[in-house]
Amino acid sequence: MSSNTNQSIESLAVNTIRMLSIDAVEKANSGHPGMPMGAAPMAYALWARHLKHNPANPKWFDRDRFVLSAGHGSALLYSLLHLFGYGLPMEEVKSFRQWGSLTPGHPEVNHGTPGVEATTGPLGQGISNAVGIAMAEAHLAARYNQDRFSVIDHFTYTICSDGDLMEGISHESASLAGHLKLGKLIALYDSNDISLDGNLAESFSEDIQKRFEAYGWQVLRVDNENDLDAIGQAIETAQKETSKPTLIEVKTTIGFGSPNLAGTHKIHGAPFGPEEREEVRKAYGWEWEEHFYIPEDVAGHFESLKFAGEEAEKKWNALFASYKEAYPSLAQELEKAINGELPADWDQALPTYQTTDKAIATRSASGEALNAVAQGVPNFIGGSADLASSNKTELKKQGVFHAEDYAGRNIWFGVREHGMGAALNGMALHGGVRPFGATFLVFSDYLRPSIRLAAISKLPVLYVFTHDSISVGEDGPTHEPVEQIPALRLIPNLKVFRPGDANETVSAYRYALNHHDGPVLLALSRQNLPILEGTAEASTKDALKGGYVLADSEGTPDVILIATGSEVSLAMEAKEKLKTQGVNVRVVSMPCRELFLEQPEAYRESVLPHAVTARVAIEAAYPVGWEQITGDAGEIIGINTFGASAPGNLVLDKYGFNVDNVVAHAERVLKG
Amino acid sequence: MSSNTNQSIESLAVNTIRMLSIDAVEKANSGHPGMPMGAAPMAYALWARHLKHNPANPKWFDRDRFVLSAGHGSALLYSLLHLFGYGLPMEEVKSFRQWGSLTPGHPEVNHGTPGVEATTGPLGQGISNAVGIAMAEAHLAARYNQDRFSVIDHFTYTICSDGDLMEGISHESASLAGHLKLGKLIALYDSNDISLDGNLAESFSEDIQKRFEAYGWQVLRVDNENDLDAIGQAIETAQKETSKPTLIEVKTTIGFGSPNLAGTHKIHGAPFGPEEREEVRKAYGWEWEEHFYIPEDVAGHFESLKFAGEEAEKKWNALFASYKEAYPSLAQELEKAINGELPADWDQALPTYQTTDKAIATRSASGEALNAVAQGVPNFIGGSADLASSNKTELKKQGVFHAEDYAGRNIWFGVREHGMGAALNGMALHGGVRPFGATFLVFSDYLRPSIRLAAISKLPVLYVFTHDSISVGEDGPTHEPVEQIPALRLIPNLKVFRPGDANETVSAYRYALNHHDGPVLLALSRQNLPILEGTAEASTKDALKGGYVLADSEGTPDVILIATGSEVSLAMEAKEKLKTQGVNVRVVSMPCRELFLEQPEAYRESVLPHAVTARVAIEAAYPVGWEQITGDAGEIIGINTFGASAPGNLVLDKYGFNVDNVVAHAERVLKG
Repeated sequence: MSSNTNQSIESLAVNTIRMLSIDAVEKANSGHPGMPMGAAPMAYALWARHLKHNPANPKWFDRDRFVLSAGHGSALLYSLLHLFGYGLPMEEVKSFRQWGSLTPGHPEVNHGTPGVEATTGPLGQGISNAVGIAMAEAHLAARYNQDRFSVIDHFTYTICSDGDLMEGISHESASLAGHLKLGKLIALYDSNDISLDGNLAESFSEDIQKRFEAYGWQVLRVDNENDLDAIGQAIETAQKETSKPTLIEVKTTIGFGSPNLAGTHKIHGAPFGPEEREEVRKAYGWEWEEHFYIPEDVAGHFESLKFAGEEAEKKWNALFASYKEAYPSLAQELEKAINGELPADWDQALPTYQTTDKAIATRSASGEALNAVAQGVPNFIGGSADLASSNKTELKKQGVFHAEDYAGRNIWFGVREHGMGAALNGMALHGGVRPFGATFLVFSDYLRPSIRLAAISKLPVLYVFTHDSISVGEDGPTHEPVEQIPALRLIPNLKVFRPGDANETVSAYRYALNHHDGPVLLALSRQNLPILEGTAEASTKDALKGGYVLADSEGTPDVILIATGSEVSLAMEAKEKLKTQGVNVRVVSMPCRELFLEQPEAYRESVLPHAVTARVAIEAAYPVGWEQITGDAGEIIGINTFGASAPGNLVLDKYGFNVDNVVAHAERVLKG
Repeated sequence: MSSNTNQSIESLAVNTIRMLSIDAVEKANSGHPGMPMGAAPMAYALWARHLKHNPANPKWFDRDRFVLSAGHGSALLYSLLHLFGYGLPMEEVKSFRQWGSLTPGHPEVNHGTPGVEATTGPLGQGISNAVGIAMAEAHLAARYNQDRFSVIDHFTYTICSDGDLMEGISHESASLAGHLKLGKLIALYDSNDISLDGNLAESFSEDIQKRFEAYGWQVLRVDNENDLDAIGQAIETAQKETSKPTLIEVKTTIGFGSPNLAGTHKIHGAPFGPEEREEVRKAYGWEWEEHFYIPEDVAGHFESLKFAGEEAEKKWNALFASYKEAYPSLAQELEKAINGELPADWDQALPTYQTTDKAIATRSASGEALNAVAQGVPNFIGGSADLASSNKTELKKQGVFHAEDYAGRNIWFGVREHGMGAALNGMALHGGVRPFGATFLVFSDYLRPSIRLAAISKLPVLYVFTHDSISVGEDGPTHEPVEQIPALRLIPNLKVFRPGDANETVSAYRYALNHHDGPVLLALSRQNLPILEGTAEASTKDALKGGYVLADSEGTPDVILIATGSEVSLAMEAKEKLKTQGVNVRVVSMPCRELFLEQPEAYRESVLPHAVTARVAIEAAYPVGWEQITGDAGEIIGINTFGASAPGNLVLDKYGFNVDNVVAHAERVLKG
């Protein structure tokens, strides 16, 4: 390798990225140095020459998006953000992986780090987020761009790794991206033939080119990892292919430049110590011994790169100003969408149901609510993983989102639950849209890793999950959720609603649309449920504080029945029966337990007076988590085994979800 | 279509399968008629002409395996099982999807239905089970076959659907199968271009041939769905390709023969009623109006097909008898493995640790235990999803399981957690091996659907999941499990162990290997943990009844500290500190709460006397599920938010996992 004097400023810049990343890992004594060392050139080439971004305003809406799917290479991203002037101080780079820093071990969006577009690390998620981001871009462009005004017009880039492409989710999302012909999605594949445990060839022998071509992608390849021009040409070729996403395979050397460790898994996931750092430094021809050093020329070079981005945003601001004049209402709608604001009276079309209305499944009420929301919220968009007809998620007269018309608002995700989950995250990350996705509740397991990331990332994603208990019936245990509801409630920052009737369903939608800093999940019944006395008013209230007195006793209750979903009407029936026995029953409907527990003590006490210890919680799900509601003196009616295949009402009855059993439990807790 | 008189007995047999499936769905008024109508010919061709099976003995070990990956087509499978003489009575076919029947909505293994090889329905799982089955076959063949004695030598077949191939798990397992060159795996792809919501083209446009060739598969295609000879020829071509798995795409018509619904999604998932049945009957030229009718000729034909299978098993029995003479110890070992028995003294090499030994992470103790088990249990085989070096799962000197040596016992699953989960299920379903798989605990979410199926199916699969809490540290929240442990405990029939030190880890292995009717999951620490006083004896005990008194107070305890995993040693430290304050503390270690709760009341009372209500549970996980242990008067120290990126000990401390906080909680519960 040449000495610095012979190095171009660009190759010096690349080495600065490498050394900064190495020093961050070394100082933390933890992290992944190998990936940044190998991927620095492609990252530099992309960011310096092609990425449309203005580091002075990381939130500029029409910026190109960049997702580091290989999130373990976070040191690379932090080095880029520091050097390109995103306002990530060197102190933060030096605090890599430390308590309270802006530079956690894996990139975290909404953690305060400027320029981080997605929380990545769990493999396969980032590239799949990028698919969702590109979908959002395509949709907004189709909806809002007008002749001469391409106000939404940017690329979505990601750097992904071998591990990303081994994960099943990458199959789902790449297949979806190819199907949707997302021409503005460009993935740089850091192909280094090494995985954590050793040579990739030990576990992987796919023909990646053939695989991605099978999905409908353009596949390009760059053999010289340090050839910035070759990388740049590939990016340009990718940009020109407007009807296919592009995968650019860049053959790299993990830990490039390390005399002893390059090209081996030993440099993947651990710092390599001062001796090897010294060797690496020499190999790079890096003349400065100081750690975290940025040569003045390099600093100046990065400074000079800022100009283009500033100009680009200025130009866009001017474009948008003209657009606003030409299309004021469109512009206003888009601005609101970008800001995550709901239109005035967005909820006007939401229905209210009366007790005289016929019984209706909450999935069907959800379908009506979804359509009402779609009327009031123009950027509400989503679909199902091939269960739209069962999930009741079709947005009527809103068209299908597909390659011939990205303005459609019904997304056919296909049988790709996990890819859907990550795409929803990507859409929320992009902003400008409010995404929802649907499947059977039992299959929430298939996208659980993406739900978790939505919760970590504080993304306003809405999950419409139907067929919410053993009442699914004939399809049997593989299709009957039992543990899913309590397991989902354990995910921090996720709100799980299981509404008791159509009105509570509407109320849950009110909450979901008004909730901006985390995902909301609806668990909805397959079977019809009666409209309950007292919920009509509830439908106009946002979320009902998670739980409320639906039907009170005369005077102090002898016993309190607490229920969710389809078991609320069961509780009401049991109340009637108990009344005939002279027992005073209060029924508490608790569509969202997490939210109820967040209420002030006084409110909780008003619903569940501590003096009344005779309590029974009823939920057709695994009976864990209610103890803090029922207390030692109370009981829980739930199901702690898998369900069975038979007509749904029979299955419910067999597992004890019937009036007699609720009455028996109430009598037992009354006896104490 | 021709009338019956012109129909060959084989096409009549195919129509019998169709009509039986239709009648089962119609009688249940629930189910999926379209798939059986389209796939009946390929299923018949396979079962009648190629499948090596003896319906009189569905458990014959060297039978070909058949997995209906498209489990929603269960009526097809039940029709086959009835007609081929598996001893599934017609009454059961008529009780399709009814309470207590052997014919649930989706096939369930270990449900008593003869001939069902796997629980399927959640898409993508069945084809991935088939990969695991083929892996087990390859391994046992490599280990036990000898010159002239191919005692293990069978094919693995599956029928999969469009939906199966859309799921990400199909990518992972197909990629793994291609990498492993599983030549005896043959997948028939029921390619009908319809998914539940409509035309497949709305959501899917992959070039399947190219995709599977990219994985290293042979891909064949049959265009005439009713051409039994063409299907048969493709199966023969597949059998001859010994170094590649084969996908046979059979272009079919969903609901074949239905004049009004064939080829549409309307016939996918619902019965079609008597009028259309009548039309279909005519279209098939089926002359009998009676439902569930089997023409005499057809019954005779199926009867005649039994002979070949009986002969095949007889021949194999003779072969095995000679093998037993020639290789008595190998034969004995294999027989034990087939019967799921452990060798005598299998646990001899399991280590015991002393308090004087240096602190050791439970993941490392697990590595030692795994190797000890591997010595004692020759059919113990498994690996990691590319984290073997972190999970400590390498079986030393046991070779790598790969295409050049299937006798190796270390499986490199690659970054394919979900595919691994389903492959483990497949291996357990095949029998003859005891499989284990590993990854980081936080990524248990990636394979949760497969864990659930292992639990439903009662399969003895072992999960070795390390890095079990926020003490993961620097990798940050994306890699720090919080909700995973309590969420896994909710899966019925799964036992979750979180051992407190190396000895408890060994004890958990004892339990796991002796547990034959469900999966066991180990949650293991990244960080070193001291060997605790009193656990050395524990290591020799199987599972410690899930929870036990590790360190008792003098006399009646004032307070009981209950802990798992790394928090057990924390509880011990707190006990010491509280002792100096004159507080009598009992420490209960509870490595497996589910198992503790299964113990007799008297035992539980001896560990947690009801008179002692001052209790604190300590676990670095989401604090739900301990209430039934701690009661209203007790407290739980847990973490109800996501973790953070910083050195592990610091993160633990910041979230309250320190002596002072435990002491403070103990003092609080003491005050009542």
